[in-house]
Amino acid sequence: MSTDHDRVSAGRPQGRRPGASSSRQTILDAARSRFARDGYAGSTIRKIADDAAVDASLVMQFFGTKEQLFAAVMSITPGALARMAEAFDGPTDTLGERVTRAYLGVWEGDPRDSEPLLAMLRAAISNEQASAQVREFVQERLLDARGSRLNNDTDMTLRAGIAASMLVGVIVGRRIVQVPALVNEDLEALIARIAPGIHAILTAQPELRQR
Amino acid sequence: MSTDHDRVSAGRPQGRRPGASSSRQTILDAARSRFARDGYAGSTIRKIADDAAVDASLVMQFFGTKEQLFAAVMSITPGALARMAEAFDGPTDTLGERVTRAYLGVWEGDPRDSEPLLAMLRAAISNEQASAQVREFVQERLLDARGSRLNNDTDMTLRAGIAASMLVGVIVGRRIVQVPALVNEDLEALIARIAPGIHAILTAQPELRQR
Repeated sequence: MSTDHDRVSAGRPQGRRPGASSSRQTILDAARSRFARDGYAGSTIRKIADDAAVDASLVMQFFGTKEQLFAAVMSITPGALARMAEAFDGPTDTLGERVTRAYLGVWEGDPRDSEPLLAMLRAAISNEQASAQVREFVQERLLDARGSRLNNDTDMTLRAGIAASMLVGVIVGRRIVQVPALVNEDLEALIARIAPGIHAILTAQPELRQR
Repeated sequence: MSTDHDRVSAGRPQGRRPGASSSRQTILDAARSRFARDGYAGSTIRKIADDAAVDASLVMQFFGTKEQLFAAVMSITPGALARMAEAFDGPTDTLGERVTRAYLGVWEGDPRDSEPLLAMLRAAISNEQASAQVREFVQERLLDARGSRLNNDTDMTLRAGIAASMLVGVIVGRRIVQVPALVNEDLEALIARIAPGIHAILTAQPELRQR
């Protein structure tokens, strides 16, 4: 077993045997689910290997360490990233609704989109190393490199950062902590409730008042 | 050592020797900081005992298990709870600002108020048992049993739930993930940015529109 897998673990797409890329994908899928469920600290190479029905040594041959496996899992799908970025483009009067729908939609839609995000969030909150990775991801990939509306616009970057973290808060309440008031609402009703708030964050003048 | 502490661990306030209640408090303080820093899964009785400079057996004699210690730590101060509840009372035009200030203020103020909240949040996200405790806490102590404005008002309870989870999201972004855009803003400027959004969540008509 070891020599074949050693060759695969060198990470060259060329020269892989047919079965290797599907094993790799099976491990990634198992890791994504496991990190999403148990967080970074609660997940082990061994558990992930069990979930994927492979030997733990194979996981290590493909990915090296748990950290490297986590980094591979954190690759949010380009489609989800694009939907979040594109929501910022378009007419201002529906900006809040578009952004709310895009963000909550990604978190509540296809598990291939939502599980890496849940995994990242759980990991970021329980683990300093993962927290740094998420910080980098949010700032560089979501905020700095966003659609045309945010380019070189520090005011809009701040607004987008606040809006994004607020929408993540809704997801934490609904999907992780599962506060009944939030769980019992359907997604469309929740979007209708939240959109005016996100719209205000993205467009309103800051309320500077005397205390 | 054991007989004295066994007596203390029975939980009767009367009959405690002078040193016992201060040991108990030292352990609680150490546990609060440790849970806030490392989360529920990452904290151990042994580490907490080391932080408190006591023997691990003493921690177990006072609190039994890590779970019971966690439950004791999660007792948010009555003052913080009251400030969050009272923010809902008062004139409507400053509702968003009052609630934003009360919530962010508690999370960013005195560590004795913010550490139990950070500990709860980290634990809820990495641990199903803690998640259930936080769910119960949020629904029963923050939403159902809130000030007069929320009594028997399911619409306002839902709005408050959404607003509270959004404000928690801001704290996650600022204090835990430490997204630069959020960290670099001072608290008053952040409140001025966020208040209009929270105000809309608490007061606006839901935006029901055709997709």
